[in-house]
Amino acid sequence: MPIVMTAEEMTDFLGEVFPQIEGMFSIDRLEEELLVMRLHAAEQHLRPGGTVSGPAMFALADVGAYVATMARIGRQALAVTTNCSIDFMRKPAAGADVLGEFRLLKLGRALSVVDCLLYSEGQAAPVARASLTYSIPPARQG
Amino acid sequence: MPIVMTAEEMTDFLGEVFPQIEGMFSIDRLEEELLVMRLHAAEQHLRPGGTVSGPAMFALADVGAYVATMARIGRQALAVTTNCSIDFMRKPAAGADVLGEFRLLKLGRALSVVDCLLYSEGQAAPVARASLTYSIPPARQG
Amino acid sequence: MPIVMTAEEMTDFLGEVFPQIEGMFSIDRLEEELLVMRLHAAEQHLRPGGTVSGPAMFALADVGAYVATMARIGRQALAVTTNCSIDFMRKPAAGADVLGEFRLLKLGRALSVVDCLLYSEGQAAPVARASLTYSIPPARQG
Amino acid sequence: MPIVMTAEEMTDFLGEVFPQIEGMFSIDRLEEELLVMRLHAAEQHLRPGGTVSGPAMFALADVGAYVATMARIGRQALAVTTNCSIDFMRKPAAGADVLGEFRLLKLGRALSVVDCLLYSEGQAAPVARASLTYSIPPARQG
Repeated sequence: MPIVMTAEEMTDFLGEVFPQIEGMFSIDRLEEELLVMRLHAAEQHLRPGGTVSGPAMFALADVGAYVATMARIGRQALAVTTNCSIDFMRKPAAGADVLGEFRLLKLGRALSVVDCLLYSEGQAAPVARASLTYSIPPARQG
Repeated sequence: MPIVMTAEEMTDFLGEVFPQIEGMFSIDRLEEELLVMRLHAAEQHLRPGGTVSGPAMFALADVGAYVATMARIGRQALAVTTNCSIDFMRKPAAGADVLGEFRLLKLGRALSVVDCLLYSEGQAAPVARASLTYSIPPARQG
Repeated sequence: MPIVMTAEEMTDFLGEVFPQIEGMFSIDRLEEELLVMRLHAAEQHLRPGGTVSGPAMFALADVGAYVATMARIGRQALAVTTNCSIDFMRKPAAGADVLGEFRLLKLGRALSVVDCLLYSEGQAAPVARASLTYSIPPARQG
Repeated sequence: MPIVMTAEEMTDFLGEVFPQIEGMFSIDRLEEELLVMRLHAAEQHLRPGGTVSGPAMFALADVGAYVATMARIGRQALAVTTNCSIDFMRKPAAGADVLGEFRLLKLGRALSVVDCLLYSEGQAAPVARASLTYSIPPARQG
């Protein structure tokens, strides 16, 4: 499905609806086939040893699935995560940003499903994978 | 399986291994049948409207599953989450702490599995459920 | 939420909508707090060694979540599973039926969420746990 | 990681360890980047309307993740599924085989993680996605 918001519009929208995460994430690429989002490695997301924490990776997966959905249906602050399954597979590289690659698998009337692979920047093997379902409220405002 | 650490010992241990989450969580009950942990509602975990965010609930589920496992095998900073599946079912109550009830379903040589129900304090219906798998490194230190 | 179908009515309904699974499952208990369903151990569900297969346990989890939902909203052949997360924790006992205990965690307008623990009959420790989400079509027929 | 068994060797091995599923599945492609397995649409896997059932799709995901793992480590009848998360996204096409595309995301000492997309043959949009974790017993026999 085609993208109806630019990366800039999406960044502004995220700043409005989730002011708490300002500066934590940014959009590297927003295209129909692939969304790439970045989690900026920062002190509060790190575990001892300098690796990004599990909850910070979950937060990246969650916001990316939201962006992948909103980019098709427009500004919908009310869409909510209903399910996430996440596998942590490798220790992230110390001090590196985490990049999330997101692919929209389904966009139905009521639900969207997004698949996600997370990588430490500069490494080939993924650190985690996740799949997320968002529930989209019935009355869509474009 | 019997509990080998008190809530106080566990709290000290969490402060050592996860200094970043100091003050975010506390242990309400640590018993063989049931662990209850509390996520203190604080500005940085809130969404617009004052409800606790999904990533903060994930963080509670993750730390509680860790505590439920460590409480049986003793201090093991190296145990890592390998999988989490979480369902968000209801909007948390504005401004309320979130309580997590944790039950250990399995403690094997290599893996533990923990089930979790999350509630807004004072409400009967759960806001989320989660199940988590932790991988336990081969050499256990008691 | 109250139960609106008896175990007998439900059994008849399952026979109509899923004729292929006739004889594979039965309802041991259908109450508001707890549904118990039984997977009859039979040759085609067994792995070498006589243990019930993973797909047969998944099938039990799936049909039980359907029954737990239908028992509240009445005959709705069109409800469909949208997500299942299942953890296999122990090897089932050879030749034993598998019992599933089901608890409805949520029944919303569009989605139901059901938690499930699976046991080999006669054993205390669960062999598997699962959580399932069913999507309920908009027009409910009572 | 390189493949150490051919499709023919794998088919023979599956016939030995899972005689019950003989004829249900076959291997279309077994390559390092991608495994494709086929679920043959047959009466006992169908729901009313002629669509493949959820448990049959789960069974395909489960056997494919096993094959993707075994193809790297050799004949290991003892590897067991520990977790599966599956999203059912679209109704399968009536009467069509279901094809599963499997990608190995991790092969560690103790666990493998496999991602899977399921398609009705001849259709572009996936009917389901799944991720599975297999536990690999410590003593590997090559």
